[in-house]
Amino acid sequence: MPTFKLTIEYDGTDYHGWQVQPGLRTIQGTLQGAVARIVGEPAHVAGAGRTDAGVHALGQVASLRVGFTHPPETFRRALISLLPPDIVVTRVEEAPEGFDAQRWAEWKRYRYTLLTRPYPSALQRRYTLFVPRPLDVEAMAKAATLLVGKHDFSSFQAAKSSVDDPVRRIFEARIRSEEDHLFFEIAADGFLRHMVRIIMGTLLSVGRGKLTPEGLGAIRDARDRSMASKTSSPNALCLMEVGYEPFAGGCT
Amino acid sequence: MPTFKLTIEYDGTDYHGWQVQPGLRTIQGTLQGAVARIVGEPAHVAGAGRTDAGVHALGQVASLRVGFTHPPETFRRALISLLPPDIVVTRVEEAPEGFDAQRWAEWKRYRYTLLTRPYPSALQRRYTLFVPRPLDVEAMAKAATLLVGKHDFSSFQAAKSSVDDPVRRIFEARIRSEEDHLFFEIAADGFLRHMVRIIMGTLLSVGRGKLTPEGLGAIRDARDRSMASKTSSPNALCLMEVGYEPFAGGCT
Repeated sequence: MPTFKLTIEYDGTDYHGWQVQPGLRTIQGTLQGAVARIVGEPAHVAGAGRTDAGVHALGQVASLRVGFTHPPETFRRALISLLPPDIVVTRVEEAPEGFDAQRWAEWKRYRYTLLTRPYPSALQRRYTLFVPRPLDVEAMAKAATLLVGKHDFSSFQAAKSSVDDPVRRIFEARIRSEEDHLFFEIAADGFLRHMVRIIMGTLLSVGRGKLTPEGLGAIRDARDRSMASKTSSPNALCLMEVGYEPFAGGCT
Repeated sequence: MPTFKLTIEYDGTDYHGWQVQPGLRTIQGTLQGAVARIVGEPAHVAGAGRTDAGVHALGQVASLRVGFTHPPETFRRALISLLPPDIVVTRVEEAPEGFDAQRWAEWKRYRYTLLTRPYPSALQRRYTLFVPRPLDVEAMAKAATLLVGKHDFSSFQAAKSSVDDPVRRIFEARIRSEEDHLFFEIAADGFLRHMVRIIMGTLLSVGRGKLTPEGLGAIRDARDRSMASKTSSPNALCLMEVGYEPFAGGCT
């Protein structure tokens, strides 16, 4: 049975996140349904990142072992035709046996997008967080750099969740400003639950002058969720890319 | 009673166009409802362009005469708080008495956006037309220039509609390519019903090699709707700007 690597773009607005949940519409569930219709048997589609409800993806990657013997491009076309327009499989490749999109991933890159102008946007409301008041972008950029490296990120983990090892290596974390937008780009070898959104919320506290960049460093060192700011809204977060070679820079 | 000039951004996806229609959700109707709640009496909001169902706007302009005596910015905030998130009043200014957004307009500028890559996009599906096969961009650009000037545009008018005078002056019409996108930008002193979308459909025929640029010129001269191509989808069209001074270039 061949193994496939799927690259997927999705608009998370109308989904309860990636992971299958009984009775709820999820990205994974919808993909598995389409695959099952194509191959005639249940299929397990394993995603590299389990995005939260409302989070989008431009480059989610999933692995799948399934009895499909036609060319990968045929598989992609069949998936496109069965999936709703808010989930698009942009690429299907045959993968080495045993390929696991989550465990083989060396890094993932997320982008969080702020709309920084005095009035909201009708056309961008689904994909940005509206922040009407000016932010101290320099302080935010400085604070972001303090996150880079190998650290215990317990302070930036959803309160109710726990993992055996809350240590992650952040390869890149930076703030980029472009006209009315502020982008926070972060690449790491893995992310704890809600990690990007809690970091973003805390960076917003820095931008609003309620916290110094060093203060964000101190919160990180405290390993205490209650010290970080609130989790920012999921709709402005997008999983951009999953890498299967060592990280070599390149948040663009 | 003061007169106001409103600048409005909207996502037309969930509306039956600009103009009030009994029993249907429209942009004009929604705006008038919000204004009426603020001033306590019925209000008429006159738009510069009557956008079709599904068409968006970044810079629609509307005029309104109403008994509101607080500062325009207060009016804007009140409107924002009452309107749904897919309609945003980005600016409110006091206007000269008698200001009529439609009749005083010197020009309007629209943008039509094509997504030109082999697979569709989940995140851009609401705002672009997906065109998977390569287009002859040079031929399209050449054809677009043939539209500029003062002409009878009957060939590019919705079949069922008729106006006294189908002559319009196009100031600028150009094709611009940027990564996976092709933009058609057009500015004119006015547009006939469905005009931009029928022109776009005909430019697509040129891009697909079914029509030469000169052929598009001949269709224009024929003043016969049946010769032009089909009306392209509304969701990729956006009213960008309405000008109240003579056109001075500047499609960007």
